[in-house]
Amino acid sequence: MHRIAQIGAGRMGAVHLANAAHNPRLEVAWLVDPRPDAAGIAASAGAQVASVEQVLADAGVEGVIIASSTDTHLTLVKACLAAGKAVFCEKPLDLDLASLLAAEPELAHPKAPLYVAFNRRFDPDCRALQARIAAGEIGDLETLNITSHDPAPPPAHFIPTSGGLYRDFTIHDFDLACWLAPDPFVEVFTWASCLVDPAIGAAGDVDTARTLLRDAKGRLCSISNTRRSGYGFDQRVEAFGPRGMLRAGDLLQDTLQAWRETGATSAPRYMDFIARYAAAYRSEMEHFADILSGQAQPETGYADSVRSLRLAEAARQSLRTGLPVRV
Amino acid sequence: MHRIAQIGAGRMGAVHLANAAHNPRLEVAWLVDPRPDAAGIAASAGAQVASVEQVLADAGVEGVIIASSTDTHLTLVKACLAAGKAVFCEKPLDLDLASLLAAEPELAHPKAPLYVAFNRRFDPDCRALQARIAAGEIGDLETLNITSHDPAPPPAHFIPTSGGLYRDFTIHDFDLACWLAPDPFVEVFTWASCLVDPAIGAAGDVDTARTLLRDAKGRLCSISNTRRSGYGFDQRVEAFGPRGMLRAGDLLQDTLQAWRETGATSAPRYMDFIARYAAAYRSEMEHFADILSGQAQPETGYADSVRSLRLAEAARQSLRTGLPVRV
Amino acid sequence: MHRIAQIGAGRMGAVHLANAAHNPRLEVAWLVDPRPDAAGIAASAGAQVASVEQVLADAGVEGVIIASSTDTHLTLVKACLAAGKAVFCEKPLDLDLASLLAAEPELAHPKAPLYVAFNRRFDPDCRALQARIAAGEIGDLETLNITSHDPAPPPAHFIPTSGGLYRDFTIHDFDLACWLAPDPFVEVFTWASCLVDPAIGAAGDVDTARTLLRDAKGRLCSISNTRRSGYGFDQRVEAFGPRGMLRAGDLLQDTLQAWRETGATSAPRYMDFIARYAAAYRSEMEHFADILSGQAQPETGYADSVRSLRLAEAARQSLRTGLPVRV
Amino acid sequence: MHRIAQIGAGRMGAVHLANAAHNPRLEVAWLVDPRPDAAGIAASAGAQVASVEQVLADAGVEGVIIASSTDTHLTLVKACLAAGKAVFCEKPLDLDLASLLAAEPELAHPKAPLYVAFNRRFDPDCRALQARIAAGEIGDLETLNITSHDPAPPPAHFIPTSGGLYRDFTIHDFDLACWLAPDPFVEVFTWASCLVDPAIGAAGDVDTARTLLRDAKGRLCSISNTRRSGYGFDQRVEAFGPRGMLRAGDLLQDTLQAWRETGATSAPRYMDFIARYAAAYRSEMEHFADILSGQAQPETGYADSVRSLRLAEAARQSLRTGLPVRV
Repeated sequence: MHRIAQIGAGRMGAVHLANAAHNPRLEVAWLVDPRPDAAGIAASAGAQVASVEQVLADAGVEGVIIASSTDTHLTLVKACLAAGKAVFCEKPLDLDLASLLAAEPELAHPKAPLYVAFNRRFDPDCRALQARIAAGEIGDLETLNITSHDPAPPPAHFIPTSGGLYRDFTIHDFDLACWLAPDPFVEVFTWASCLVDPAIGAAGDVDTARTLLRDAKGRLCSISNTRRSGYGFDQRVEAFGPRGMLRAGDLLQDTLQAWRETGATSAPRYMDFIARYAAAYRSEMEHFADILSGQAQPETGYADSVRSLRLAEAARQSLRTGLPVRV
Repeated sequence: MHRIAQIGAGRMGAVHLANAAHNPRLEVAWLVDPRPDAAGIAASAGAQVASVEQVLADAGVEGVIIASSTDTHLTLVKACLAAGKAVFCEKPLDLDLASLLAAEPELAHPKAPLYVAFNRRFDPDCRALQARIAAGEIGDLETLNITSHDPAPPPAHFIPTSGGLYRDFTIHDFDLACWLAPDPFVEVFTWASCLVDPAIGAAGDVDTARTLLRDAKGRLCSISNTRRSGYGFDQRVEAFGPRGMLRAGDLLQDTLQAWRETGATSAPRYMDFIARYAAAYRSEMEHFADILSGQAQPETGYADSVRSLRLAEAARQSLRTGLPVRV
Repeated sequence: MHRIAQIGAGRMGAVHLANAAHNPRLEVAWLVDPRPDAAGIAASAGAQVASVEQVLADAGVEGVIIASSTDTHLTLVKACLAAGKAVFCEKPLDLDLASLLAAEPELAHPKAPLYVAFNRRFDPDCRALQARIAAGEIGDLETLNITSHDPAPPPAHFIPTSGGLYRDFTIHDFDLACWLAPDPFVEVFTWASCLVDPAIGAAGDVDTARTLLRDAKGRLCSISNTRRSGYGFDQRVEAFGPRGMLRAGDLLQDTLQAWRETGATSAPRYMDFIARYAAAYRSEMEHFADILSGQAQPETGYADSVRSLRLAEAARQSLRTGLPVRV
Repeated sequence: MHRIAQIGAGRMGAVHLANAAHNPRLEVAWLVDPRPDAAGIAASAGAQVASVEQVLADAGVEGVIIASSTDTHLTLVKACLAAGKAVFCEKPLDLDLASLLAAEPELAHPKAPLYVAFNRRFDPDCRALQARIAAGEIGDLETLNITSHDPAPPPAHFIPTSGGLYRDFTIHDFDLACWLAPDPFVEVFTWASCLVDPAIGAAGDVDTARTLLRDAKGRLCSISNTRRSGYGFDQRVEAFGPRGMLRAGDLLQDTLQAWRETGATSAPRYMDFIARYAAAYRSEMEHFADILSGQAQPETGYADSVRSLRLAEAARQSLRTGLPVRV
């Protein structure tokens, strides 16, 4: 059993806390969160409320899950690593590329393991896809088409602190594309619009985008994004090579079909990211337990965070200038 | 070009007439039908109206399509064969097993080719299935599950002359099962009910059935029938063997899907047998042209008709007695 | 937290023990099993080894999971119920109908809750299917077609104590059919063969069957069974009614497809029942926790066990006599 | 019966000739082609060989199918229209935008109907998709994702006269996108590479592309192209709007599936465009018959040709400059 603490008990924090509490290899000792009901939440995981300082000072704490608001991630990560504690940080490490780059000395070769949680990396279908591409099943990858459509847009008040579409949303696709592709992408082009919710546009953001990536050998990746599909999580990947295509499809809620005069209707896709990525989140926590027990190195850390944020920044610049941008 | 005649221009006859007229190897010279508008129908195929006698007397006629009412088939077939003309007879040759057996001398080794049109035999999917089973793709066939559900029941006034569910409807499945299976089926058991339309029951027939066939080695076939699916033609076949399963599925009207919050809806299945089996009917006519030109022997003739009618009679006896019946 | 004990730690027992240990509402205090490594297995669930007598004498034990060999179920169930403990009994209660009927006084209206675990009842797809049929989505159910094919046969040495195909295997389908159908089935007919493994035949059993059920109104159910599909768990249900068809399909291991010149290949089905029914087994344990906390009555108990065993016995008699058998 | 002539009997010409010959409303009188076996080909359609001059001079010829080499289209179309004959011209009218624009006086409001055959416009699935989008089924269209992958690249010697990827291949997608979208596209961006066949690169062309289109309201279209899928024709369209998604999928060669331990394999996609678009080509000829009989105006003519060629030219410029290009 590895003794850990968690900072932050919001929506995403609740998911991680429950997974940690159910993981037989982890014991959640402390929960840090200012909300009034924190003690009750902590108790549900067999933990007690503490301050960040108490967590850092507790020599028995081996690891810390950081699920607080994004603007606190970098400071907390540094403090935890400095205290020698392994870190599970909800993505992103930071929304600001300059700040992230400035943290290079502490984070690039950290004193303790630093794991940044990108959910696609632990989604069983994405993992199977990555493994089969890497095993050469379709030959040398030529192109990728990624569809990443959310069921419904977030509340408009979330937009200003979100980092915008590319840093909040497409960043998952950037990380996924980099993971699947054999070589780094070197150039980005994007077009985007506000077609879904005018309040998103009023907040200075876009909600619908098509983005292209290109590597030095001319391999291409196309990313299709919308904040609102109208029919649930539509997150598919198609990988093309000389020996055919591999695709990862959407999860449906069950296998039922109703056959009627108007056609056969399948089960709906998932409407909620917690349900859609439940297996991924459980798997992320297993990975953290593996890291704590020395069985694994973090699959994603500082370098991956920098890489995908660079692509997001390049996409933002492409949107601003209307031109392709080299990374 | 082979000069042919057709007898009967009802619903099924119209299909065959159009296919014959469009077939570049066939020339329809005569149409026999008492209906007032027969001349117009004949003209649409480039033919003229004639009597049966004229057709039989026309030495230039190489073949005759018989699509008249079922009770006339046997007499007309015999007459045409006696006149040395190849016959394309819409199924069934006859509804009465005793009459059919009595025709054995003329029909078992006919003077001219006798082709009895069972549409499944020329359905592209059924043909592909048969070929792959025969090629040993799943090893030695063990069991068959046939689903054969029509969109909607026929008008109740059709029932009394139809021969009843087994001789009119399940007979297709009996013929299909015999074609796919390596050995003859030797025993039949069935249960059936009138669940769809009370008028069918009032006419002494059933509309819903489950029928089992067994061969001497214990191989099994299950047939699921209903006169009304409510969602179109549902005619699937699953063949099981030691190396897996082969299935032929339903045809959909197109490849479109609508993805909505309630699920993804495919195109409907076909509602009309002429559209559903359009490719099969064209292919039947090609087969007749092949027969006339000496390139093929009839794929289905007297022996197949007897075989499937024997199974239908056994099913009727099983329904009457409540017991399994040996063929 | 409800304090429970478990009797039996074989293959199925290991699944239940792990689910109980992970369930936050359950605390496994005792494990009863004579095997040498029982202490270690018990420890993995936070439990200690005990005898049946100790379990029965422990007033703090609220419930007992019975996962011992089938021939001990009835005795243990009676003892636990007599001691006032709620019971979770792995199916079947007993393989012998006479013994089961003789237990009617103690089991029909037990002193404590008696839950008999049929895994289909807690499979999410089967539950969704049952709920939608019951809600009238296809109108009054007319027929059911159940496909229930296992990946591979059990070892031949298991056959003699299994109860045979109908009592060991088809019994799941009998229970499922009864659950989905509006009225009781009153008659059974079956044909079966040994086509998969001659050793099964040598042990006096069959491995391939087609079974029909009929209710008093003529509604029909067809069950397709084989011990070996060759391609994993193939367990589908199709329910037909006047407003169309509802079907529950097979689970695939993931959503991946490989598109090649020879066609598109989906992920395989499951090869292992523990993986295939993982969600069902977790859900069964939740149900037991609900029962212990008074939130639920057992969904399946003595009456369901008698009902499905009666159908299995009728099927055995039908196989022996070659005739349909009234229940 | 409308008397027509055809110019050109190459691969595409053979398809049109056969469809015209089988169409009961058309009579092919003349075939113009210099190849030695032209007389035999003509005879198969009931036609005779003639010169262009003879065709133009034959007052009984109502329409002309132009299926000669692309560089002759414009001259022949003008000559036929000048002679008052309706024209069915295989796409494209011309590969050179300047030449096409220069022909505006004769072609924009021609003296006789001018129909330019884009096969997608008559593909049943594309037509159903267009009709359902236009009927508002998904609300106001927001984005389109078009996948258009051919089975295998053309021979390298075809490339130099092909017009290159955008004018030869993507032009189908440009036309399709314009047809489906509510407003004109005003800007194009593309990246492309030679990843499939170095000989294509040596001939100065590309074989793999991702292209974006944008309209004045910010609606987006993404087009995925490769000359070689490795698995047949992969030509799918997804249309997204506020009420969900409509998609047209790939045609499979049949409905068969083989279920094996490694997964279930469907039938292959089509490998040959003549088979893949057989229904579309027949439908094109019906449309020509409708035009000749005055029942229809050409669905695609000069304006559509200019529109899609403009997009192709813009894409070529985008490829050359690396910048987005306004149309």
